[in-house]
Amino acid sequence: MSTGCFITLEGGEGTGKSTLISELCSRLEASGKTVVRTREPGGTPLAESIRNLVLHPQDGQAWSPMAEALLMNAARTDHLEKLIRPAIARGDWVVCDRFADSTRVYQSVTDGVKEDVLALMEQFVVAGTKPDLTLVLDVPVAVALERRQSRAGAQDAFEARDAAFHQRVREAFLQLANREKDRCVLIDATLPIDTVADRAWSAVTTRLGN
Amino acid sequence: MSTGCFITLEGGEGTGKSTLISELCSRLEASGKTVVRTREPGGTPLAESIRNLVLHPQDGQAWSPMAEALLMNAARTDHLEKLIRPAIARGDWVVCDRFADSTRVYQSVTDGVKEDVLALMEQFVVAGTKPDLTLVLDVPVAVALERRQSRAGAQDAFEARDAAFHQRVREAFLQLANREKDRCVLIDATLPIDTVADRAWSAVTTRLGN
Repeated sequence: MSTGCFITLEGGEGTGKSTLISELCSRLEASGKTVVRTREPGGTPLAESIRNLVLHPQDGQAWSPMAEALLMNAARTDHLEKLIRPAIARGDWVVCDRFADSTRVYQSVTDGVKEDVLALMEQFVVAGTKPDLTLVLDVPVAVALERRQSRAGAQDAFEARDAAFHQRVREAFLQLANREKDRCVLIDATLPIDTVADRAWSAVTTRLGN
Repeated sequence: MSTGCFITLEGGEGTGKSTLISELCSRLEASGKTVVRTREPGGTPLAESIRNLVLHPQDGQAWSPMAEALLMNAARTDHLEKLIRPAIARGDWVVCDRFADSTRVYQSVTDGVKEDVLALMEQFVVAGTKPDLTLVLDVPVAVALERRQSRAGAQDAFEARDAAFHQRVREAFLQLANREKDRCVLIDATLPIDTVADRAWSAVTTRLGN
């Protein structure tokens, strides 16, 4: 039995990750793969309970970046142990909306946690389960904001941050994609969804030999 | 204005920490101190929400020691930032039922997290806010078990573990108290509560010059 693959999608709010994941999972399934679509924070019952805590703290309360980083890593631990690693071991293709890169970016920007502390936590938690491929979706903050505003529902703790925060998040994702080119593929997500999906699919087939 | 003091109480389940804390807080208040009594995991609204998650996971679910360690440290981060550090800075005396030593002990025993990983997390989170004095309460596991059984209410995830687990917890606390004698005072908690309280008070007055 072949070992599965682990693909993650990263990028700020409103970059179109969910839409692309749906398209990507359809193409993988059409090519005969067993696909596990999941997300972070969350993906298992206990990790989802942490997601709820971290994205929607009680009224008037806020987590510090360090507390957030620890919570994200606690959720990731459960997710890796109970869902991601068993699925990869079975030979499934795991497609995950956000993963460790989001913690590196969100919890370090704007006077957050030092990058070396985040890197150590990631080392303890992720260990050998690095993604085989990470698609980093990029759109200008103004475009992302417009997309977010057209969505229904209340904003979570991250969506509610100001434009300067989202600009720093965007820059941090661009730097990351540039620094880790072996693993990351940067995609211009202002393009039409079909074009974005074609580019993503091209990255999957080229890099992972699908 | 003088800086406050930070006293922690440690030990396994059923060692009588709560009873001793009540007595200790009364004596501190009688001596004119402003006392903040608190506990871990918990002590602030957000940390208490983590406490609930970690001690009472959904039916049929269990946290791994690594996930537990990260959750305990996330709760501790919030507790330190919003309650413990401001109280010490005001000159108050903080008396806390369990603190970082419990994470070192509970999340390392029985194939748990490696001690060096726990030590690094503690370093990130606790930083300079080490307790001035830690009282480690010790009773044989059989005695502790008897005390626990006489308590009302359902067991939490740690209380429900077997006797071998509690034996290893006891040994780990004894080792800790022995290794860090500058900070820790070991107290035989099988003695009558008045004697235990006198010994604890003696440690406070001798070590912290109350």
